Amino acid sequence: MRVEQKTKRVKIAGMGRALAGEKINFGHQTRYRLLPGQTILELGVEAADQALKKSGMRIEDMDCIVCAMATPLQAIPCNAALIHEKMAKGSSISAIDINTTCTSFISAVDIFSCLVDIGRYENILILSGDTASAALNMEQRESYELFSDGAAACVLTRAEKGDLSEILYSRQETWSEGAHDTEIRGGCGLMPAFCMNEGNRDDYYFDMKGHRILKLCAKKLPDFVDRCLEDARISRDDIHVVIPHQASRALGIIMPRLGFPRGKYIDRVEQYGNMVSASVPFALCEAEETGRVRRGDLVLLMGTAAGLTANFLLMRY
Amino acid sequence: MRVEQKTKRVKIAGMGRALAGEKINFGHQTRYRLLPGQTILELGVEAADQALKKSGMRIEDMDCIVCAMATPLQAIPCNAALIHEKMAKGSSISAIDINTTCTSFISAVDIFSCLVDIGRYENILILSGDTASAALNMEQRESYELFSDGAAACVLTRAEKGDLSEILYSRQETWSEGAHDTEIRGGCGLMPAFCMNEGNRDDYYFDMKGHRILKLCAKKLPDFVDRCLEDARISRDDIHVVIPHQASRALGIIMPRLGFPRGKYIDRVEQYGNMVSASVPFALCEAEETGRVRRGDLVLLMGTAAGLTANFLLMRY
Repeated sequence: MRVEQKTKRVKIAGMGRALAGEKINFGHQTRYRLLPGQTILELGVEAADQALKKSGMRIEDMDCIVCAMATPLQAIPCNAALIHEKMAKGSSISAIDINTTCTSFISAVDIFSCLVDIGRYENILILSGDTASAALNMEQRESYELFSDGAAACVLTRAEKGDLSEILYSRQETWSEGAHDTEIRGGCGLMPAFCMNEGNRDDYYFDMKGHRILKLCAKKLPDFVDRCLEDARISRDDIHVVIPHQASRALGIIMPRLGFPRGKYIDRVEQYGNMVSASVPFALCEAEETGRVRRGDLVLLMGTAAGLTANFLLMRY
Repeated sequence: MRVEQKTKRVKIAGMGRALAGEKINFGHQTRYRLLPGQTILELGVEAADQALKKSGMRIEDMDCIVCAMATPLQAIPCNAALIHEKMAKGSSISAIDINTTCTSFISAVDIFSCLVDIGRYENILILSGDTASAALNMEQRESYELFSDGAAACVLTRAEKGDLSEILYSRQETWSEGAHDTEIRGGCGLMPAFCMNEGNRDDYYFDMKGHRILKLCAKKLPDFVDRCLEDARISRDDIHVVIPHQASRALGIIMPRLGFPRGKYIDRVEQYGNMVSASVPFALCEAEETGRVRRGDLVLLMGTAAGLTANFLLMRY
């Protein structure tokens, strides 16, 4: 279903990012893992505090805390309530989780830009980050050597008169042929922790079928990107920089095939690996800090997530 | 922050509901639990199929599948991707999870009514339901005898010319003083399944501190409800029926204290118990089937959820 999209007059007022404390190397690839006792809650708060500071706002100015994370910290309550407890206890700020796994941040910006535009909320704090290291299987080298623990956050707010910022277009599709190509089968409702035994222990680890994902992406992504650009009436040349989900080292193969040559997109897989839901906002935050993204630039956030879900969001930063 | 709210011209086009297969009784209280091999995925699909049928629509007409559930089925991917696989494999319908625990359905209607109103999506399938029985602790009788496994679903779509349906007002607040009053600490990122041992096994069960929740609700809820009604410029007399979250047998004490006497609200705790995220849509669906709710009626969906989160949503059904 093709629906004409209204431009949303919102802006990212500030961003922040935080890395886990242990730095490890696999060849030239650097990864970060939580230190004993360190949690994604702490990293999330660190990133969110930076985002608030850069926005010139305080937590009291927010009216919604959104955790756009791929994995739960506890089965109950939602992640946003646990972040709320660390940052906003005693307040009545709303707390909501949005989850489309690795592209949750893009989905959250997509959804909450509509809510800000329509006046349902005014100032939103969005946090992403996952405890990747909690479920990595040393036996599956492809994923064990790929992931990092990190967090990133942003303040999303109404664009003021004179601001160039806006969300021009967003699209999300899910292709559930790939629902089991990236998964953690155990630990939750379908296979509780109590059911773990020596025979099914592997089901509680992160399990990635990299080859199958690449095959499904090769089949679906080029057409998806072409349709989005056509719908948005934007050409690849109009785009200043693409921030893709830092899915894997295959980024350097996939992005040129989608029509984005080296230099047009951010690739920090060697430096940070795949930080699950934090990858996109972390890369955007770093790009803003280094001057690679400036106010008014046309930026494309995109990526694929477990599901398989694909996101495409065009914003004037 | 008080923001003037726009009325959203959306309607619930159809609803459905499904109960787990095992019926058990604790005194006069009836509860439902999943049969061996039965899952919330099946119940969700059953409820969603009914909702589509009553709407006169097919899954192909939907452009977004939203799982508004309190608990994950797997840590990865999100619940909506797993439902998508059962109902919409081969399609490109978007799949998103929204989680505010027990009031997730109200939050999803709140959020997606804005997205439909602004034209981001057109037809949304919302499903709620949780595997409560997967984490119940026989030692904690208060919760063990309270919960049921069930699912409910609705199709949310644009209201046509002549339709009376609309969302008039919605508000959500989180009071994280109560973040640990209802929780499942283990199984996910903060305490993975691998960490379970004889000493911490209880952390992997659902844990409810009923007395503390009631105390926090007594302190916060009356003022919350008063403020919402004042903001919405609606009096209690204008409301045809209140559909509260079926939190516990204390409903009959709390609701009159909030100014809603017996007969004004739906109480099905004796018949079904607390079905977590499914409670509100299940009760709304049943009320519609029995004629208790009719088109054009002013209906209040409300409740408190683990977090502690409170939701209040006024709709003309």
